[in-house]
Amino acid sequence: MKLCILGFGAVGMGVVKVLSMKNDMLIDKYGLDISVVAVTDRSGAAVNPEGLDLQLLIETKENTNKISDYPEYGVPGLDSAEVVETVEFDCLVEVTPTNIDHGEPANTHMMETLKKGRDVVTSNKGPLSLYFSELVETANSNNAEFKYEASVGGAMPIINFAHNNLAGNNISSVLGILNGTTNYILSRMANEGSSYEQTLKEAQELGIAETDPTQDVEGIDAAAKIVILANSVLNRNVTIKDVHMEGITNITPESIELAKKEGFLIKLIGEASNNNLEVAPRLVKEGSPFAVDGTLNVATVMTDLADDVTVVGKGAGSIETASAILSDIICVKKSRNQD
Amino acid sequence: MKLCILGFGAVGMGVVKVLSMKNDMLIDKYGLDISVVAVTDRSGAAVNPEGLDLQLLIETKENTNKISDYPEYGVPGLDSAEVVETVEFDCLVEVTPTNIDHGEPANTHMMETLKKGRDVVTSNKGPLSLYFSELVETANSNNAEFKYEASVGGAMPIINFAHNNLAGNNISSVLGILNGTTNYILSRMANEGSSYEQTLKEAQELGIAETDPTQDVEGIDAAAKIVILANSVLNRNVTIKDVHMEGITNITPESIELAKKEGFLIKLIGEASNNNLEVAPRLVKEGSPFAVDGTLNVATVMTDLADDVTVVGKGAGSIETASAILSDIICVKKSRNQD
Repeated sequence: MKLCILGFGAVGMGVVKVLSMKNDMLIDKYGLDISVVAVTDRSGAAVNPEGLDLQLLIETKENTNKISDYPEYGVPGLDSAEVVETVEFDCLVEVTPTNIDHGEPANTHMMETLKKGRDVVTSNKGPLSLYFSELVETANSNNAEFKYEASVGGAMPIINFAHNNLAGNNISSVLGILNGTTNYILSRMANEGSSYEQTLKEAQELGIAETDPTQDVEGIDAAAKIVILANSVLNRNVTIKDVHMEGITNITPESIELAKKEGFLIKLIGEASNNNLEVAPRLVKEGSPFAVDGTLNVATVMTDLADDVTVVGKGAGSIETASAILSDIICVKKSRNQD
Repeated sequence: MKLCILGFGAVGMGVVKVLSMKNDMLIDKYGLDISVVAVTDRSGAAVNPEGLDLQLLIETKENTNKISDYPEYGVPGLDSAEVVETVEFDCLVEVTPTNIDHGEPANTHMMETLKKGRDVVTSNKGPLSLYFSELVETANSNNAEFKYEASVGGAMPIINFAHNNLAGNNISSVLGILNGTTNYILSRMANEGSSYEQTLKEAQELGIAETDPTQDVEGIDAAAKIVILANSVLNRNVTIKDVHMEGITNITPESIELAKKEGFLIKLIGEASNNNLEVAPRLVKEGSPFAVDGTLNVATVMTDLADDVTVVGKGAGSIETASAILSDIICVKKSRNQD
């Protein structure tokens, strides 16, 4: 399987590291012999139809932060659009930065790839929260595989879980803590009685919150994930514009303390159901599966037979997200074997 | 697909109810047209090669508690061994009561079925905790499917989860709260400060603990599940005799209170790893995924890439367990399509 990796930040690097670690196992266990034929970043691309050296990809990026410096096969200025257009590959790994306003250029890269009947694996929430049905329809009508487990909850495998492990169940809703940064802030506020502003500042110093925390604290990141869950698990056809959003910026230590006295915690909860799409702070009971601390993500699937089933996992992280991408690549291989 | 259901207690009844509810969906979504050709209980059997009526099966059992009273096709005294021997079917659903000492007669029924190249789906922990490798090898050498998701954690889909959703990961251990009765008792003791004896008595009155609670409170039930997880997820070859077991009968309200003061809860935790097999009370941190109340089951899979991933769900219940059996039946169908 020839892979083309667009984007070589934390997730892209994680994917190459994981492929390097797991090379022998993938061949032995899944008959999956992967070669990475192209990698792009802001500087340009590295392209070799015979396969790039995984260690050399990592070293090049770590040394100069430019993949176009890859010896012999680096091409400064060669952009992702041209790579998608001209390079021969089987599966696109789209891990460029998320743009939640217009989803580009990732959306175009994925659409062009799917139109050629090639497979796509992505962690990119932007296009999925804006153009989900178009992407899925394009995949289906071109007999291409389109997988996006890593787009929701990093290493928390909720999408394939809802599709496969709960086969036979009707799913009425998905509720989740889908943003690790806000869960970290709320957990610390609860444990230490500190203010929102002070806790955010500390989270920023630790690298858990970004310098501009808007996407996280206003609920936008969680809303994008709710859209993906609504479309993929509940077969709805919605975009991020349909989600009612309320963030955590107005939550006070006093309200958290009051809740605590009654045996409750305040968490930023996303809900996708047939008549509701929202992200907002809610009370959750101590001792419930939602009462998890730190940067963990949680999602509960409400079903008719199995009742409520919950998955908890790391919502972010380079290797963790790469793990979800790898399991999707293995899925693509299995599906292709059945063709 | 012709099903033969051995055992018509809570789980067997759940399976028939679920099949009745989901009949149209199974045909539409999975091309799965199921007919139940035989059902057995202590009274005998009902057998019809053309398919038994699902509603009539449920009504007969509810009215007289004897499946041999099924109109026209009921046969008093016809036992499971003879049904397995003489009836034509594709897939055995083995849901007779668990015997943890010798695993019979379920083990023989499953072995005989697998030897004929027929598929088996079961919730029966007994044979799995004693003869796991023999059962799997017999299935493999006869090209039969052997599925047992329902044997661990009812509607908490941990086995297929570890196999499929974490594909590509090395799994080093599985930790879990695998017994709902003991989790209920420990949760109530923590919330109410009551004694073990008093709480057990209340749980028995509510039907959550059995009259003879030994299997639950001594950790035997959880140990059987740890064996199944060790064999199926970690590829070990162990039996219940290899598990170090300690139950909850010596836990005092005082020790729970002491733990609480330090931010911990006491839970009955099972662990399967390459160098440990045990069930024992342990401290778990409040705010961790293990800090769940009530009869819920939890299992955490520790992996090299995705870090710790946790599944939480109902550990028991007629329809919940039947849900796991149904998803296994759908899996069997998908595998057969690929043959």
